Amino acid sequence: MSLLVVGTVAFDAIETPFGKTDKIIGGAASYISLAASYFHRNLNLVSVVGDDFPNEFISELNQRGVNTDGLQVKAGEKSFFWSGKYHNDMNTRDTLDTQLNVLESFDPILPEAYKNCDFLMLGNLSPAVQKRVIDQLPKRPKLIALDTMNFWMEKTFINDLKDVLKEVDVLTINDEEARILSHEYSLVKAARDILQMGPKYLVIKKGEHGALLFHENDVFFAPALPLEEVFDPTGAGDSFAGGFMGYLAQSRDVSFENMKRAVIHGSAMASFCVEKFGTERLMSLSDEDVQKRMEEFINLTAFDIELS
Amino acid sequence: MSLLVVGTVAFDAIETPFGKTDKIIGGAASYISLAASYFHRNLNLVSVVGDDFPNEFISELNQRGVNTDGLQVKAGEKSFFWSGKYHNDMNTRDTLDTQLNVLESFDPILPEAYKNCDFLMLGNLSPAVQKRVIDQLPKRPKLIALDTMNFWMEKTFINDLKDVLKEVDVLTINDEEARILSHEYSLVKAARDILQMGPKYLVIKKGEHGALLFHENDVFFAPALPLEEVFDPTGAGDSFAGGFMGYLAQSRDVSFENMKRAVIHGSAMASFCVEKFGTERLMSLSDEDVQKRMEEFINLTAFDIELS
Repeated sequence: MSLLVVGTVAFDAIETPFGKTDKIIGGAASYISLAASYFHRNLNLVSVVGDDFPNEFISELNQRGVNTDGLQVKAGEKSFFWSGKYHNDMNTRDTLDTQLNVLESFDPILPEAYKNCDFLMLGNLSPAVQKRVIDQLPKRPKLIALDTMNFWMEKTFINDLKDVLKEVDVLTINDEEARILSHEYSLVKAARDILQMGPKYLVIKKGEHGALLFHENDVFFAPALPLEEVFDPTGAGDSFAGGFMGYLAQSRDVSFENMKRAVIHGSAMASFCVEKFGTERLMSLSDEDVQKRMEEFINLTAFDIELS
Repeated sequence: MSLLVVGTVAFDAIETPFGKTDKIIGGAASYISLAASYFHRNLNLVSVVGDDFPNEFISELNQRGVNTDGLQVKAGEKSFFWSGKYHNDMNTRDTLDTQLNVLESFDPILPEAYKNCDFLMLGNLSPAVQKRVIDQLPKRPKLIALDTMNFWMEKTFINDLKDVLKEVDVLTINDEEARILSHEYSLVKAARDILQMGPKYLVIKKGEHGALLFHENDVFFAPALPLEEVFDPTGAGDSFAGGFMGYLAQSRDVSFENMKRAVIHGSAMASFCVEKFGTERLMSLSDEDVQKRMEEFINLTAFDIELS
């Protein structure tokens, strides 16, 4: 089943306690597409870059089964650029620079061949742009997932965000964002509140503390893999979304039981992502690496208790 | 198999965003004994109180199968008292008052009948006092677990702590303490370091973020139950230890597989503990409550992924 990914393809410059990069490939849709490609090979991408963006990365995506007909390349313009610095605990970061460039006037035009997608992953973008994507679809996909961030929860954008939330099945946000969106400190209360806003499923990402999946009165928890070092957390949430949606699109099953498996697949891809700077790790995995990581997740959480 | 619990039985006064208590029952050994008593009924307690301590609580322990012959009652003296205030996130607290009283000169004398214990749980006390307990045992128990805190990791006590750590099988500490003890930020590195100090098993408690069990190259993760409200976190770590050791003593199995189950039992008891002030919740559980909670933990983490 086809998976449509819409989001940024961009440049990042990252500083962590372990080192510093020049301009490297970043962007939500880059991470999502790469992560998803390990599970699913029928992937369409909608995004925008400037003519400063390297063809090599686009070719890499194509080789991984990602159709890039929907990737607009704007002549004479520059790609979106973000620069940030992580602190020692890796849970907080400062944005050093944001240059919207091509993103400022991004109109996500869907090629005809993309419009009958079965699965849609909307990476973090303005809620109005995310809505524009949904509005172009002639029929509702089997599943729409949306990622967003605190910036869009501020006064100027919150109504746009609430509008698009009415149309989605799965929302993925982090714990801080869940608290901001719901005005509740307790994540259980926050989830109950957010599940009234439209999404039937809510994933709350807690970074090194794992992820929670809420649906009606059910809750499922997936840990993050305890790692020796989190080298660079950039893209972890998007890699999660990519693994999650790639697995769902491949298995064609949107039951809660299968969503649990998808959350584990997402967690596995996030655990790879943070092991190196940027997209590096996600571009060099073997199927065996992925299988082995899944096994580590199973071993990490499995216990057998028989209740009387 | 007999479980010996050594630790404080005391008074607490607690302030949380949800309310404030007068002097209520507290102390590590109170929580440990209560939590363990839901799984195991052959429990011996060594502790000390003043004559200001209510007999009702001691009777309650006795009714729950806890032998209190080793509970010293010091005439004319006052029980240990601690008072603290939790902040909004419930993960940090300020100590408002500590009155050692009877604890200042506590000598943990083991009644003869206690000395052949199979399982020993040393609640948080000075490492020298913890060592005194081990030194009184004619034969090594099947399993010794020890809980401690950052206070004993300071310069004055760290050598005492390192001495007693050489004698224990399981160490339970929180994430901050693991970092202090190991001088490593990464919990994986911290665990590796601490497992060189004596303990063969290390439990790192992360409060609302769950608990990690480390053993050789294996790691197991148990989540905390997502709760609507954490009403009062006091005693959660001790309730964890009680559930953990109570389950192990009852099942008489100290394999890694069984330790995983014990971690889940510990997590379940901690999840009850925080639902009300002090020991209140741990004194009012039915077997059905406990079974139901175990089921919630199973549902929270279970997924079935078949690897090729």
